[in-house]
Amino acid sequence: MNIFPDLPTPCLLLDRAVLESNCRLMAERMTKLGVKLRPHMKTAKSADVARLATAGHFGGITVSTLKEAHYFAERGFKDILYAVGFVPSKIGEAAAIQEMGDQLILLTDNMTAAAETAIRAAKLGRKFPMMIEIDTGDGRCGLDPNLEAEAIVNLGRVIHKSAALELRGVLTHAGHSYHGASAEAIKAIAEEERAGAVKAANLLRDAGLPCPVVSAGSTPTARYAENLEGITEMRPGVYMFGDVDQALIGSCTFDHIAVTLLASVIGHNHRTGRIIIDAGGLALSKDIGPAEFDPDTGYGTVVGAGGKQRPDRLYVAAVSQEHGQLALPGGATPPWDEFPVGGQVRIFPNHVCMTAAAHSSYRVIGKDGKITDEWERVNGW
Amino acid sequence: MNIFPDLPTPCLLLDRAVLESNCRLMAERMTKLGVKLRPHMKTAKSADVARLATAGHFGGITVSTLKEAHYFAERGFKDILYAVGFVPSKIGEAAAIQEMGDQLILLTDNMTAAAETAIRAAKLGRKFPMMIEIDTGDGRCGLDPNLEAEAIVNLGRVIHKSAALELRGVLTHAGHSYHGASAEAIKAIAEEERAGAVKAANLLRDAGLPCPVVSAGSTPTARYAENLEGITEMRPGVYMFGDVDQALIGSCTFDHIAVTLLASVIGHNHRTGRIIIDAGGLALSKDIGPAEFDPDTGYGTVVGAGGKQRPDRLYVAAVSQEHGQLALPGGATPPWDEFPVGGQVRIFPNHVCMTAAAHSSYRVIGKDGKITDEWERVNGW
Repeated sequence: MNIFPDLPTPCLLLDRAVLESNCRLMAERMTKLGVKLRPHMKTAKSADVARLATAGHFGGITVSTLKEAHYFAERGFKDILYAVGFVPSKIGEAAAIQEMGDQLILLTDNMTAAAETAIRAAKLGRKFPMMIEIDTGDGRCGLDPNLEAEAIVNLGRVIHKSAALELRGVLTHAGHSYHGASAEAIKAIAEEERAGAVKAANLLRDAGLPCPVVSAGSTPTARYAENLEGITEMRPGVYMFGDVDQALIGSCTFDHIAVTLLASVIGHNHRTGRIIIDAGGLALSKDIGPAEFDPDTGYGTVVGAGGKQRPDRLYVAAVSQEHGQLALPGGATPPWDEFPVGGQVRIFPNHVCMTAAAHSSYRVIGKDGKITDEWERVNGW
Repeated sequence: MNIFPDLPTPCLLLDRAVLESNCRLMAERMTKLGVKLRPHMKTAKSADVARLATAGHFGGITVSTLKEAHYFAERGFKDILYAVGFVPSKIGEAAAIQEMGDQLILLTDNMTAAAETAIRAAKLGRKFPMMIEIDTGDGRCGLDPNLEAEAIVNLGRVIHKSAALELRGVLTHAGHSYHGASAEAIKAIAEEERAGAVKAANLLRDAGLPCPVVSAGSTPTARYAENLEGITEMRPGVYMFGDVDQALIGSCTFDHIAVTLLASVIGHNHRTGRIIIDAGGLALSKDIGPAEFDPDTGYGTVVGAGGKQRPDRLYVAAVSQEHGQLALPGGATPPWDEFPVGGQVRIFPNHVCMTAAAHSSYRVIGKDGKITDEWERVNGW
């Protein structure tokens, strides 16, 4: 794999051809399944990436923080869904984003939060579209359409009655799809997600309430869903980049991971059999999600020839704040000569949403393998 | 505990009185033990904090990235130790920092890196102080004074002979002290750290090489060392703030943790028995270090009255990117009424070096319990 001796390490590399291919395939898949794509920008947090991800669709995006919403609104995105349960204390910032000419859609699963948001929005002379969060098996947030049908309808009524809110529809996120151990398991979760969201939408409609939007999606379910009947939009995010976790559940292959971490080799510890790099828990994150599927994933996997996993499966076995330790599975002697002190190494991130968040930009690799651009990211809150 | 309805969440709170007390106690302890304090700024990454941490000592600091070195040099710090193995590719940035009038001290445990750094420094017309990294039991980086005495002396000779380098001494970090399960265990590690560093220093001196500085330290060993004979400076860092990890190994108590995370309650999931907050794996980090000592620490511990742990031990049981889930140990029904949706909650960080890194500033709580300042942090590379 290309290394880049002129770049400071650690830094993020973004392969533009892989990114474009990932974006195009998902956009085409969603079109084929008859749904709009509202890509989740919580992973990339970059307007440059968002422009590629929205190509061929309606231009709407999803965000995970109001700071992201603000950043994208400033850069011309007009239809932004803030897909985290809204609380009234954030109304000032939401109104400021809306003033930028943006449609900011809010989310709730809570009657108190919705009612108080309506009161505060009215005081500010604002009106916000609002969606109801539905739980279709993830167990984090949202109302369960099987167990809490009445609460869903009551919440819908409160939103619909408020002059400061507009009931836009229902939203669900099958986060448990990240733990799907096989294509069949993920297909089943995708169907649960679809059916649960549609059931919730019909609860509202049967009560005479509007529900124009039925929003679902995660990268695994968007990748594996066979039928999205009744869903109007999907919100995958991590598919743009891919990572070890997604590769291990089959949402992508290693050579379709667009973002890698560039690090320098800063030491050889012959006593412990470990190659030391200048990327640790901050540059890589301490996410060990892939260990669920492969014990030898540690904190990242070293990139091999052709952008694939190395045959010896060299990986980041340990991290401290600014140090990483590369080892072979089983503790065999690592390939010292391939990784001389002072040289560079590239790492596939375990969970790219977490890894990328520590970095302020991407160094973009163009089609000729050279760095062509540096794209900013928006981090923090 | 005070909450701050006007602050956006999630954000970091820094209690100035606790910070000042932590800094003063460590500064006095080091003076009493006859060593200089060169505080490690990798945790705080803030010039405001560094000014408090260096008070009463010589003003030297330790950093973990060249970006930190640059930031502190710009703000008037003149004696900066970059305590991560140096590689020659970073010489340009090191020279730029030195040009700011700063003494930048480099570190190595590798002959190739040292020799090549000397060549490149000479080409730039620069001279850098350099220290030799010693392993006193941590097993991450450094040469072992018991097993690699000859390598230490040979490396010392190469540095000393180079006109572009100045052999400043030896440095060790007993990182394994973070896993010390008792005061006695940490005292033993502190003595290992001291004895190993002094042994390495004497190897150089016995070979006729200079070794004016013998640098050691971590927060646990600085807190528990009973004798620092032969050590000239200590480099603890996390003691300024404290965290759950340090509290569980006895380096501080919960009410001496200076940095907490302020979050909003965004949901009540009555089906799962979890209170949902707007702080997840990014705002808190995914560091689960304290689980080594207490299984019910998850991703953070909720702050109770008087800045202590709550008697019910409410904690962050699960995180996703922007969501945290509070639960009670054993899964008992959480105190819903104490944490209404829309309210706030404060969280003790598991490992504050990791948690703080996601945030761009600290909101400083003054002695009257009100927010008095916002102090910037330097993040990234």
